[in-house]
Amino acid sequence: MLLSIHHIGIAVDDLDAAIERYSVLFGAVVEHREAVVEQGVEAASLRLGASRVELLAPTGPDTPVGKFLARRGPGMHHVAFQVADVAAELERLRADGVPLIDEQPRRGMFGLQVGFVHPEATGGVLAEFVSDDLA
Amino acid sequence: MLLSIHHIGIAVDDLDAAIERYSVLFGAVVEHREAVVEQGVEAASLRLGASRVELLAPTGPDTPVGKFLARRGPGMHHVAFQVADVAAELERLRADGVPLIDEQPRRGMFGLQVGFVHPEATGGVLAEFVSDDLA
Repeated sequence: MLLSIHHIGIAVDDLDAAIERYSVLFGAVVEHREAVVEQGVEAASLRLGASRVELLAPTGPDTPVGKFLARRGPGMHHVAFQVADVAAELERLRADGVPLIDEQPRRGMFGLQVGFVHPEATGGVLAEFVSDDLA
Repeated sequence: MLLSIHHIGIAVDDLDAAIERYSVLFGAVVEHREAVVEQGVEAASLRLGASRVELLAPTGPDTPVGKFLARRGPGMHHVAFQVADVAAELERLRADGVPLIDEQPRRGMFGLQVGFVHPEATGGVLAEFVSDDLA
């Protein structure tokens, strides 16, 4: 298991305003923008040098990011670690009894495979595995 | 300005328990552990492959991380971007009227120069610039 931070996910109220802010503050550049309907978000992936930030605006209040915003306000939402094999990482943790949100990989941004570990497992951090293989 | 994610900072209640958890879940390895007295934290820097996570336990309730834990519970606390020149980035933002926590670099973990941007500027995210030059 060799993993690195693929991106951090940030919950925002207004996607256009947030993109503008990250551009001015940090020189971020949009590389991709996509509505991920099944997750209830409109998302933009921004490059900051060698790194990535994913800005997430909810499509409505009754979505995971909408509920997050109502509860905690805008801010850091998750961290994604790039791994060679998302399914294998999820299976390794599942076999150890680690609480997971996804027991199988599903499709995320860019069509990549993703899988989320439950924040209970990490001490309050929503962690995502992401693979560079297309789902 | 070419920047990449240097680390994400995570607020924890119990540093030893958190180190053990990140080791088991993600194969993280401690590279450095240090009490940063002036910031009221005991901190551990962990490598996860090519990336870093900084675990932060408060030295008491009346510290920035202690107050964060009381208000929001354990979880993601800040994101740090590595830049060539922390002072120049802070000055660039200050000149634009961006709210900053630090107008001048100060000493952070490993003796590196660091400077924090106020969460008001970013939409709720505490952002840190960090340099690989020693302070």
